[in-house]
Amino acid sequence: MKYDARRLLSGFEKTMHILVTNDDGIHAPGLISLFQELQAFGKVTVVAPEGEQSAVGHAISLSEPLRVRQVSLDGEVPGWAVSGFPADCVKIALAELLDEPPDLVVSGINLGPNVGINVLYSGTVSAATEASILGVRALAFSLNTYKKANFGRAAQLARQVLGRLLEWPGWTSQVCLNVNLPDLPPDEVRGVKFTRQDVGPMVEHFERRVDPRERIYYWLAEINDRQAPDLSTDFGALEAGYVSITPIHHDLTHYPSLEELLSRTDF
Amino acid sequence: MKYDARRLLSGFEKTMHILVTNDDGIHAPGLISLFQELQAFGKVTVVAPEGEQSAVGHAISLSEPLRVRQVSLDGEVPGWAVSGFPADCVKIALAELLDEPPDLVVSGINLGPNVGINVLYSGTVSAATEASILGVRALAFSLNTYKKANFGRAAQLARQVLGRLLEWPGWTSQVCLNVNLPDLPPDEVRGVKFTRQDVGPMVEHFERRVDPRERIYYWLAEINDRQAPDLSTDFGALEAGYVSITPIHHDLTHYPSLEELLSRTDF
Repeated sequence: MKYDARRLLSGFEKTMHILVTNDDGIHAPGLISLFQELQAFGKVTVVAPEGEQSAVGHAISLSEPLRVRQVSLDGEVPGWAVSGFPADCVKIALAELLDEPPDLVVSGINLGPNVGINVLYSGTVSAATEASILGVRALAFSLNTYKKANFGRAAQLARQVLGRLLEWPGWTSQVCLNVNLPDLPPDEVRGVKFTRQDVGPMVEHFERRVDPRERIYYWLAEINDRQAPDLSTDFGALEAGYVSITPIHHDLTHYPSLEELLSRTDF
Repeated sequence: MKYDARRLLSGFEKTMHILVTNDDGIHAPGLISLFQELQAFGKVTVVAPEGEQSAVGHAISLSEPLRVRQVSLDGEVPGWAVSGFPADCVKIALAELLDEPPDLVVSGINLGPNVGINVLYSGTVSAATEASILGVRALAFSLNTYKKANFGRAAQLARQVLGRLLEWPGWTSQVCLNVNLPDLPPDEVRGVKFTRQDVGPMVEHFERRVDPRERIYYWLAEINDRQAPDLSTDFGALEAGYVSITPIHHDLTHYPSLEELLSRTDF
């Protein structure tokens, strides 16, 4: 596939500096495709984990030191592989590796969706959230397939979506965007939906197995059998073939409960 | 210290079944003290990680199987050590290990506070959040010290706080309570504050070091130099000597942004 990098977009975006990271590791094809497409917006630097870090949630390295290895995905732009989690990559990129803060942090493209409760487990999303905490605009891209993915096609869609989002003046560093892409050809993508996070529980169970030494072990399996998707949620919109965009933040406070508790006099 | 276990509390609580977990591991003194005090409320079962799992965030085990080892902290009540993360412990306890769902999941007592942005990184809190996702009321206890802690004293305070919270009818499984305890003698604890999560960035930096083979590595260090604490936040209330109780939830959607995006016609 020939990449038409640095193609012209509307004016001001071309000089952006974008930091790209992920949780599938610096050699993941989803990151490489994204790196290539994002060059349309300016300079792209990669700081990503050495290896796969899926479902690490918002983990950070405290008891282990971080090691950093310089790499370059295109022979020109510097990049770094970090021996830590996705959130570590963003922290150390901003604190130590980059000369100045990037204009945007983009995490992905993840192999597999990050919708519903899975958002809490997602290393991809936590990298974007970490950027938001540190005051940088950020978004996460995830692709709705676990099989062999067409990341070139997905990255082109990601670029289009990002181009439109950059025109939204309300996008500050306080709000991180969780974007899920359908794994469909362009003419089958039904459009873009702005969604809320689905909070329904996943249907999951543990498979109980016996190892060669006759010891029992368990493996988490998800049963995705929910029907009649609600298009106002990330899960529902994505399943219906839309790009799902959910604005998220890092304040977990449940304000209705806080108000109720503050109004009680008996505590 | 002599534990006055199973002491009488107000009526209905005595028959509760409480699941206790943590992220410091099943042999952590904070968990053992909590286990002993919570017996005042009924039956207490422990399902906790084999080893320390701090700052793992809301990680779950997908690519690794889980192993489970039966233990008993008091020679009577069964408990299990799990080869996974705190959230894994809650998942497998509810799915496989317990005969029926517990009435309450209590996570802790963590050595070190979990306030502000640290809530996102906390394995202690994520265990409680996982219970909430799975439909069980839950709370997390963390102690405001990193040094040698008096967990016996902290667990007594935790029991008192829990006794009062159980009388709050608004506490459903949708709301998880993040409780931070001051490391103070009872007569120096200033009271209880219901708080919001502090969302200010932490002041942190990476220490750059050189290993014996002359390779560079980095270690995350936090500089806690914020002043004039805001008593309406978890960080501020705890620093001022209060028990901080923050109701949290697992919907990360930033609704004001979603409303704004939905009102735009240009996407």
